[in-house]
Amino acid sequence: MAVMFEKVAVLGLGLIGSSICLGMRENNLARVISGHAKSVETRQVARELDLVDEVHDTAIDAVKNADLVILCVPVGACGAMAKEIGPHLKSGAILTDVGSVKGAIVRDCSPHVPKSVHFIPGHPIAGTEQSGPRSGFAAVFHGKWCILTPMKGSDAQAVSTLTQFWQNLGSMVDVMDAEHHDMVLAITSHLPHLIAYTTVATAADLETVTNSEVVKYSASGFRDFTRIAASDPTMWRDVFLNNKDAVLEMLGRFSEELAVLQRAVRWGDGETLFNLFTRAREVRRGIIAAGQDTAAPDFGRGQAKS
Amino acid sequence: MAVMFEKVAVLGLGLIGSSICLGMRENNLARVISGHAKSVETRQVARELDLVDEVHDTAIDAVKNADLVILCVPVGACGAMAKEIGPHLKSGAILTDVGSVKGAIVRDCSPHVPKSVHFIPGHPIAGTEQSGPRSGFAAVFHGKWCILTPMKGSDAQAVSTLTQFWQNLGSMVDVMDAEHHDMVLAITSHLPHLIAYTTVATAADLETVTNSEVVKYSASGFRDFTRIAASDPTMWRDVFLNNKDAVLEMLGRFSEELAVLQRAVRWGDGETLFNLFTRAREVRRGIIAAGQDTAAPDFGRGQAKS
Repeated sequence: MAVMFEKVAVLGLGLIGSSICLGMRENNLARVISGHAKSVETRQVARELDLVDEVHDTAIDAVKNADLVILCVPVGACGAMAKEIGPHLKSGAILTDVGSVKGAIVRDCSPHVPKSVHFIPGHPIAGTEQSGPRSGFAAVFHGKWCILTPMKGSDAQAVSTLTQFWQNLGSMVDVMDAEHHDMVLAITSHLPHLIAYTTVATAADLETVTNSEVVKYSASGFRDFTRIAASDPTMWRDVFLNNKDAVLEMLGRFSEELAVLQRAVRWGDGETLFNLFTRAREVRRGIIAAGQDTAAPDFGRGQAKS
Repeated sequence: MAVMFEKVAVLGLGLIGSSICLGMRENNLARVISGHAKSVETRQVARELDLVDEVHDTAIDAVKNADLVILCVPVGACGAMAKEIGPHLKSGAILTDVGSVKGAIVRDCSPHVPKSVHFIPGHPIAGTEQSGPRSGFAAVFHGKWCILTPMKGSDAQAVSTLTQFWQNLGSMVDVMDAEHHDMVLAITSHLPHLIAYTTVATAADLETVTNSEVVKYSASGFRDFTRIAASDPTMWRDVFLNNKDAVLEMLGRFSEELAVLQRAVRWGDGETLFNLFTRAREVRRGIIAAGQDTAAPDFGRGQAKS
């Protein structure tokens, strides 16, 4: 594959940032990869793992002459970083990000992006519950969707180049507007995470059942919730603070559905329960048919190396 | 291993019933395994897969002369089955079950069990989201807990024999009273399933996000919920109808926790969100340390055969 960019700057070297670096190396997408991380420790790990060609102490130094700049920091930190690097971006460069919220990114970053720079927000629907520079791996993007949310007037050629970049990392690319993205992710990702966190907190606070019992018998369902509740707390705090309206909308609908089920339990309405459970089963079948999850029972846990 | 029982009767040949049959065969635990299933189709599959030595059209025929009788039917069907087979149970036999609720099983079955029979309710914390006679496999019990809830006055020797039986199938055995079991399972299993069903239903009913988008982007969290929401609807309807008080208690606590998080989202209270997310992460670590889930990122999905 021909080198796509002379220089790519990755700002933030956690799970996603480090995975992008590894994917670029594997596919020879950049002549030079420059990286920056806020913490000294992460920068040290980046050197140790040889994630990038240049490790910089500041974002400004990292983005100099870069043709593609990727913000891989928590959503709440993107605005300040855009403000910091804005004046130092190369004319004609592409600026993108990987945040789980897009409306707030547009709101916070746009004012700081020079007109000569192509700002195209993005979101790879990929990752694991782990975090930090050691958790990255190139295959995390393979077969996963990446959503781009170009703005009105975005340069078509730049969108096409960024699309090609994600495809070269192994992803499939979709384009939609930021507002719709935030609604889609509120239901597919943000609500499930909030519910998982709530379930884990509920279990941790019981007086009648000990925490060790919860752990011991967690294979009966609870443990599935703990995986996504193990995701990075800073990242998720920022997601909820920055996609408030869509999350509250989904929470309202969830609470209505829950009230219906709670009433059915209270009044012994087996038919309502049975019908809803049957519908839910169909959704799972759709996900497996679409190749978006393994068909192996129990996620194939039995076969997994642990 | 010496044969434990001359004859074992398994009533109901779904995921758990068929797995018990396969486990008994693998470990040579019964000289003769007799089986019964309500549906003609399941009985046919049992013959085809050679799950049992004798397939019977009625439960009464299956339990004749059996030293151990295991009810593997949905919780709501156990009482009627106990009533049917009660007069035909061998004196000195052990009667047990595998239901996810124990108080209701005691309530529904006890009146029909002759004094000469040892009735010891049980619950293997094992299974997958699949169901039916073809979904069973002996390893499903390996390393999993099985909870026995003997009643006051249960024969210690019979409890010990049943304990040995489950250990021979590869399980670890715990003993507790039925009421505590129902509280423990309400939080570790019943609440997570109800929440998962609710989340899937909420997503399925949106006007602003299409079902195909939900499926397409489900890897961002939602798909984890769909696995447990794919479990057998009849079994789960019966669980909720028969563990009402404990489930409503847990639902009440869940709703309180959710209200706290919802308020934090609405008012932008990042500290509350961050602190709760950090606590939840610790619970996951406890589960992995206890060997109750794989430490592999994303449940090791990448490595699983699908």
